[in-house]
Amino acid sequence: MAIWGGRFSKDADEIAAVFGESLSFDRRLYAQDIKCSVAHVRMLATSKIIDDADASAIVDELGRIHTEIESGDFNFSSECEDIHMSIETCLIDRLGETGARIHAARSRNDQVATDIRLYLRDEIDEIVDLIRMLQERIVALADRHSSVIMPGLTHLQNAQPVLFAHHLLAYVEMLERDSDRLTDCRRRLNRSPLGSGALAGSTLPIDRDQTAAELGFDGPTRNSMDAVSDRDFVIELLADLAIFMMHMSRLSEDIVNWVSQRYTFISLDDAFCTGSSLMPQKKNPDIAELTRGKTGRVYGALIALLTVMKGLPLCYNRDLQEDKEPLFDSIDTAKSVLSIYKLMIDGIEVNADAMAIAASDPFMMATDFVDWLVVNGVPFRSAHEKVGQLVSHSSKLNTSLDRMTLSQIQEVVPEAEEECLLLFTAERSVAGKRSFGGTSPEEVAKQLAYWKKKLASGH
Amino acid sequence: MAIWGGRFSKDADEIAAVFGESLSFDRRLYAQDIKCSVAHVRMLATSKIIDDADASAIVDELGRIHTEIESGDFNFSSECEDIHMSIETCLIDRLGETGARIHAARSRNDQVATDIRLYLRDEIDEIVDLIRMLQERIVALADRHSSVIMPGLTHLQNAQPVLFAHHLLAYVEMLERDSDRLTDCRRRLNRSPLGSGALAGSTLPIDRDQTAAELGFDGPTRNSMDAVSDRDFVIELLADLAIFMMHMSRLSEDIVNWVSQRYTFISLDDAFCTGSSLMPQKKNPDIAELTRGKTGRVYGALIALLTVMKGLPLCYNRDLQEDKEPLFDSIDTAKSVLSIYKLMIDGIEVNADAMAIAASDPFMMATDFVDWLVVNGVPFRSAHEKVGQLVSHSSKLNTSLDRMTLSQIQEVVPEAEEECLLLFTAERSVAGKRSFGGTSPEEVAKQLAYWKKKLASGH
Amino acid sequence: MAIWGGRFSKDADEIAAVFGESLSFDRRLYAQDIKCSVAHVRMLATSKIIDDADASAIVDELGRIHTEIESGDFNFSSECEDIHMSIETCLIDRLGETGARIHAARSRNDQVATDIRLYLRDEIDEIVDLIRMLQERIVALADRHSSVIMPGLTHLQNAQPVLFAHHLLAYVEMLERDSDRLTDCRRRLNRSPLGSGALAGSTLPIDRDQTAAELGFDGPTRNSMDAVSDRDFVIELLADLAIFMMHMSRLSEDIVNWVSQRYTFISLDDAFCTGSSLMPQKKNPDIAELTRGKTGRVYGALIALLTVMKGLPLCYNRDLQEDKEPLFDSIDTAKSVLSIYKLMIDGIEVNADAMAIAASDPFMMATDFVDWLVVNGVPFRSAHEKVGQLVSHSSKLNTSLDRMTLSQIQEVVPEAEEECLLLFTAERSVAGKRSFGGTSPEEVAKQLAYWKKKLASGH
Amino acid sequence: MAIWGGRFSKDADEIAAVFGESLSFDRRLYAQDIKCSVAHVRMLATSKIIDDADASAIVDELGRIHTEIESGDFNFSSECEDIHMSIETCLIDRLGETGARIHAARSRNDQVATDIRLYLRDEIDEIVDLIRMLQERIVALADRHSSVIMPGLTHLQNAQPVLFAHHLLAYVEMLERDSDRLTDCRRRLNRSPLGSGALAGSTLPIDRDQTAAELGFDGPTRNSMDAVSDRDFVIELLADLAIFMMHMSRLSEDIVNWVSQRYTFISLDDAFCTGSSLMPQKKNPDIAELTRGKTGRVYGALIALLTVMKGLPLCYNRDLQEDKEPLFDSIDTAKSVLSIYKLMIDGIEVNADAMAIAASDPFMMATDFVDWLVVNGVPFRSAHEKVGQLVSHSSKLNTSLDRMTLSQIQEVVPEAEEECLLLFTAERSVAGKRSFGGTSPEEVAKQLAYWKKKLASGH
Repeated sequence: MAIWGGRFSKDADEIAAVFGESLSFDRRLYAQDIKCSVAHVRMLATSKIIDDADASAIVDELGRIHTEIESGDFNFSSECEDIHMSIETCLIDRLGETGARIHAARSRNDQVATDIRLYLRDEIDEIVDLIRMLQERIVALADRHSSVIMPGLTHLQNAQPVLFAHHLLAYVEMLERDSDRLTDCRRRLNRSPLGSGALAGSTLPIDRDQTAAELGFDGPTRNSMDAVSDRDFVIELLADLAIFMMHMSRLSEDIVNWVSQRYTFISLDDAFCTGSSLMPQKKNPDIAELTRGKTGRVYGALIALLTVMKGLPLCYNRDLQEDKEPLFDSIDTAKSVLSIYKLMIDGIEVNADAMAIAASDPFMMATDFVDWLVVNGVPFRSAHEKVGQLVSHSSKLNTSLDRMTLSQIQEVVPEAEEECLLLFTAERSVAGKRSFGGTSPEEVAKQLAYWKKKLASGH
Repeated sequence: MAIWGGRFSKDADEIAAVFGESLSFDRRLYAQDIKCSVAHVRMLATSKIIDDADASAIVDELGRIHTEIESGDFNFSSECEDIHMSIETCLIDRLGETGARIHAARSRNDQVATDIRLYLRDEIDEIVDLIRMLQERIVALADRHSSVIMPGLTHLQNAQPVLFAHHLLAYVEMLERDSDRLTDCRRRLNRSPLGSGALAGSTLPIDRDQTAAELGFDGPTRNSMDAVSDRDFVIELLADLAIFMMHMSRLSEDIVNWVSQRYTFISLDDAFCTGSSLMPQKKNPDIAELTRGKTGRVYGALIALLTVMKGLPLCYNRDLQEDKEPLFDSIDTAKSVLSIYKLMIDGIEVNADAMAIAASDPFMMATDFVDWLVVNGVPFRSAHEKVGQLVSHSSKLNTSLDRMTLSQIQEVVPEAEEECLLLFTAERSVAGKRSFGGTSPEEVAKQLAYWKKKLASGH
Repeated sequence: MAIWGGRFSKDADEIAAVFGESLSFDRRLYAQDIKCSVAHVRMLATSKIIDDADASAIVDELGRIHTEIESGDFNFSSECEDIHMSIETCLIDRLGETGARIHAARSRNDQVATDIRLYLRDEIDEIVDLIRMLQERIVALADRHSSVIMPGLTHLQNAQPVLFAHHLLAYVEMLERDSDRLTDCRRRLNRSPLGSGALAGSTLPIDRDQTAAELGFDGPTRNSMDAVSDRDFVIELLADLAIFMMHMSRLSEDIVNWVSQRYTFISLDDAFCTGSSLMPQKKNPDIAELTRGKTGRVYGALIALLTVMKGLPLCYNRDLQEDKEPLFDSIDTAKSVLSIYKLMIDGIEVNADAMAIAASDPFMMATDFVDWLVVNGVPFRSAHEKVGQLVSHSSKLNTSLDRMTLSQIQEVVPEAEEECLLLFTAERSVAGKRSFGGTSPEEVAKQLAYWKKKLASGH
Repeated sequence: MAIWGGRFSKDADEIAAVFGESLSFDRRLYAQDIKCSVAHVRMLATSKIIDDADASAIVDELGRIHTEIESGDFNFSSECEDIHMSIETCLIDRLGETGARIHAARSRNDQVATDIRLYLRDEIDEIVDLIRMLQERIVALADRHSSVIMPGLTHLQNAQPVLFAHHLLAYVEMLERDSDRLTDCRRRLNRSPLGSGALAGSTLPIDRDQTAAELGFDGPTRNSMDAVSDRDFVIELLADLAIFMMHMSRLSEDIVNWVSQRYTFISLDDAFCTGSSLMPQKKNPDIAELTRGKTGRVYGALIALLTVMKGLPLCYNRDLQEDKEPLFDSIDTAKSVLSIYKLMIDGIEVNADAMAIAASDPFMMATDFVDWLVVNGVPFRSAHEKVGQLVSHSSKLNTSLDRMTLSQIQEVVPEAEEECLLLFTAERSVAGKRSFGGTSPEEVAKQLAYWKKKLASGH
């Protein structure tokens, strides 16, 4: 019999129980639920709502239950629909009247809201840590290959040569923003809903500051009706993870391109590739592809929660139970992607020659010639136009820019001088990009130093 | 060692294996995978690619594996990443060289595409059947209360009285369109990709018509590259299920309103409600709320798959593995919602009195007075204007429309006659809506008869 | 003053009017609205609700209004919130009492539902036609280059050689399914809601069959409450267009790859590329990139409508007004993408040499060697394993498969014979894929013939 | 001829131009684009890349162009695809060589990224301000009705009485979190990408700190490749706005319920309602419904951008142009919703009697009786069980809780005493909820004071 059965003349049908149960997924919250209950019981004792002996007995028994769940020895009753009822029912079974005292001044509405916040705080800490580790591996990879030049692409077309390390550091920036967003989310969610009751607060003389402090929150939430029906923190976290996965999908796309036969810029360790059941020669970048694909499930989780919350009247509605599975799945996804990527990044072998050849296309240095003309007094737009014509001219002559003679160049760009002939190498092009945040070795070295120091300090 | 290991000098790390495995969820496809393999092997024999004895041995062993999986006795090797490899590996373990012959002229790319199509065909049939059953229950409920009048709402405001049965039949219409869409989806997906190979077809003399026929497909797919990278049918099904869940969310919203203290139009069987851990008086319509909430996860699944497929170059990419979990979850959600709703609908008790009182608001008959004026020659817009003023007038007089005297009415609507005083009852209003598809008892009776006949015929 | 002002004591504030108006976007429906009104008025006359002279006058005036709107001469009053009120108000202004008769037995709820269905019917026809035209261009491109061989990719890795025409025809298949889905959607939406009134039907003696027939519908809808609150057809169309855009995003991705310097498989006409404001050498495949990007807005529109409808109680709610902008934008997007792609496809130049070189990687023929071994009695999985080892062996020898001597091969694959040395060309590999739907020239020729015939017949 | 035409032998077809143009929507960025150009030109002069006279002339002309655009006098050339080219082309037309100098050391890639950030900074400030104003109006409404009691609902069922003001303040909390999130987003985006060039930085001696400072940024971005391809700030803002709209959809749902005939808790000013084209008595809460519906378009915009960015390789791709329309539309939507809601909230009339009657259901005080029992030593779960049985008992007796005699109560709850008979009023129930954040008048008064002070301080 379900624990709320007092009011009902007949048992809930089994099918309804299965439909409505959440124990199969919310048991993940057991540690937070117990922690929350311990704080609650201690406060009940401090506030003289229950006596100290009862409180001690409950706290001790909660400790035992925690140990049993950790070790797999706890017997989850199939009659309990969720983790909260499982634990309370067990307390009552074992402690009788004493156990029956725990739920005073508490509703599952504020209890589950508190549990999830505790859980997310831990998970965010772990994800931020994993992000930092991935950043470290990317920085290390960049550092090992700090002088390697590759074609920088826009529109997937050759644009300008860049340092491979510079390209990699773009992802370190993205991950840093992800980390920042998660930290903001954590700060915002770190308030305690405990003691908000079902929706209205409690008539019992509870001390919400005490539980908030014991649970490490920055303080209690301010409005009980908001506290029990708020899932902003779930959605905000899912939005942060969706952006994170978007970043990982971009990195994955780059990697899928780079390992392909058309690029051969890098190769991956065999551990992160799989073969084909049919084609014996295949070595596919499955981890990168799966990561790109898993972006979908996190986007989907975000939409799921936004849909759940759309148009819900205050306060708590059972729809909110649907917050957990998408949340848990997205957290698991993010953590597994981070875990595997930090290994995969370590195992990347760089084919500097292939990159160098691809980066040597002299058309990629056309902008440097424009800049040279600007420095020498030609208005930018005219310089751009002239070099555009030079590009066409070289195509007509079937000669690459770097093989044109000065006089051939001067036919189109009369301002050209001898030194222009030296412009068409990737090394010179890269070296020239000395603006802050640019791809010159000096600038990239500064950025590498910045990140190494920052990451070493643990953020 | 993974089965494709021939090419690799080192084992895939365990973490990569866990990241990439699909066996934990694609084992659900075991029956389809075996069915597909049986058809494939028989065709290989017919086509003389393997000999009859080998084919027989494999088919027999596949039968045994099927039985073992059904009974829970099959030992899924943790080294196999998916259901296809699990079964093939087992065949090789048990049959040696004979087992090693099965994968000729086949790739997992075409195999999994075939498996999913077989699986979806079965699931669609089941869902269409469940929809029909739910329609039957709704029709039966409508039939039991065919003369009950309720307020018809637009903008959640009193609009015009309608029959409760008419309101219910609106959902039968929605479900019918769901069923239609699913049937179209089934027809479209019922072609066999088997024999498309990894992407290019096969050099072996296979007969794709034979396998297509044996598997009950309408024929083979026409382009091997499309066949292995197409997941339209998954997305189309998810879109159909998203619309279906949207319908169920609307029905759920109606039910949540109707059981609330503000309406008390119906009550639900206790089995489909739950109480509160804190408030002893509560009887919450949890099933309806959960259903409304579960709409989110199906919307999310649709977005997940659309995201997975966006911008993928041809042909197969590992991202496609991400098709299964959202698909399976959405199918399970739809089936469980249908299963529980058909029970819940049966247990609805109708509070005809509460509906009748709510439907007796004479303002809801204002449109009928407009219609009376139109019949009596007043241009519609003028009639609408006059009755609007009458509504205001009655508010000023603090008299409801049905209590105004003829002369009071004529002050604002001089065209009014004695018989107008009879217009302001819900019964008369409903009875008048005799247009096809309208809410008059005759029209609703016709629709009830239509549905009873149609549903009885099994569609 | 807004036309429904009779009941209200004060004017709607301008800000509310701007917030709520839809004329700025629903004026697009003017032709359908007029068509619908003409049918309605004729029916009112046939049914003796208004007299023939009034009907004639209204129909004539509607004709004039249609002409004025087409020519830009119609003066849309800023006081009318939508296209329906704009036209009715104009009729009343011009025809007085006669014009005031038109809205009898009609609500904007059924009127707008009818207008949108009429509109979508036309738009679907146009989109299906544009799809057919795009298919024709792709088929023509495939036909012009029917013997060109390219590397077939899975996981963006070299897999097996395929015909370029075969790759292109995969998109013709996708587009055909898009066309099929749209046709199903059109069939399903082609029923007339007109005469459903606000929600309950009408007390006036209307003939819904007459208007349905005049408007080319297959008949009237069956339930008035469903008819006015149903937007399934909008969502279904958006889902169909989302899948279509997903297909176009894949084609775009292929094109973006193919025109890049790493591939140089094709080049686009300059008209479909743009340069860079900074880099003079750039020729970017902007149309393909924009198309890939525009996928997002159609996915977004689908989610927008699913969100709008989630949890809405029956019947009409003003939320439904939000159906139009995402719908119109998605239709415009689909049509513009189709229009420009059919031109862009025509202008593709194929670099058969670059494709051939990329397709000549002998590893891509490894599967053919597996097949040869299977034909010669080696169990598939053993053959796959052996050829996998041969691939490794060739890497160690630093010799490509096609340059290995028979004895070198036999060291790893003792079953190999002289003729195996001939297997490692792309031409032979492609030629061998003779299974139905495979990439051999014969099979592709059959498919080209199939499509040419089918498309010429106008579907 | 498009301005990048130097390289091309033929004009872009008109259809491609229309497909690719963004001027029709990005002209909204004109002020930011000009501001950005002014800062850029001044820096070019400081850095001696152009001379002071040229810089002055350009800055002056940009000022004139700004004035012309503001006044509607600027002639946007139809040959310019975007706002950036429109302005640069105009400069060149008017200033010749001098105007042609402006684009040195700049690409549209960094220019547009800078423009959008400037634009969003302004828009976020405005939205945060509008949120504060709406909070003020809600607080004022709560303050005006600070003693009104209403039924607090969970699952839309009567739960416990609460103050109407308490319910309203829940929305003030939500809006505060929205404001916080937007402020975090603003801080994160407030770095200058200007000077990142197309992707690699610049070879010209630019000073990015100077432009960053002049434009009010906290500093320049650190990685040029990231800077031009990052749209995190757009997605983060859209996620924040999606959550905000979710909140508004919940408030709208509450309002739609409250104004309905089943509740009649409040009434809205006529200005925010509309009537029916058919039913003269209707007064529909259209603004609330439209707001609820508009939630869909913002969710859709979020998904649109997440889709656009998914799987894009570095760096800039033209897909990014698709960021603007969903962004602009979502900002407009949020601002219009805030603008109209702050007026609508002001015009709400509260029907305290209807709320009081609904809140007087004695079942809603059942929890208070449980609490009384807990205070008197009964273990919570037993107390909950007993009161549950009392609820059933009262139903069987057909007597409401507040009319039961002490001895009737004691039959089920022997611990009951005389004072329990006083528990069953809404006033007493509300008064007792004195826990922090609870609904007692004292607690709510504290919260009202908190918000008044906080909002008065301008946050």
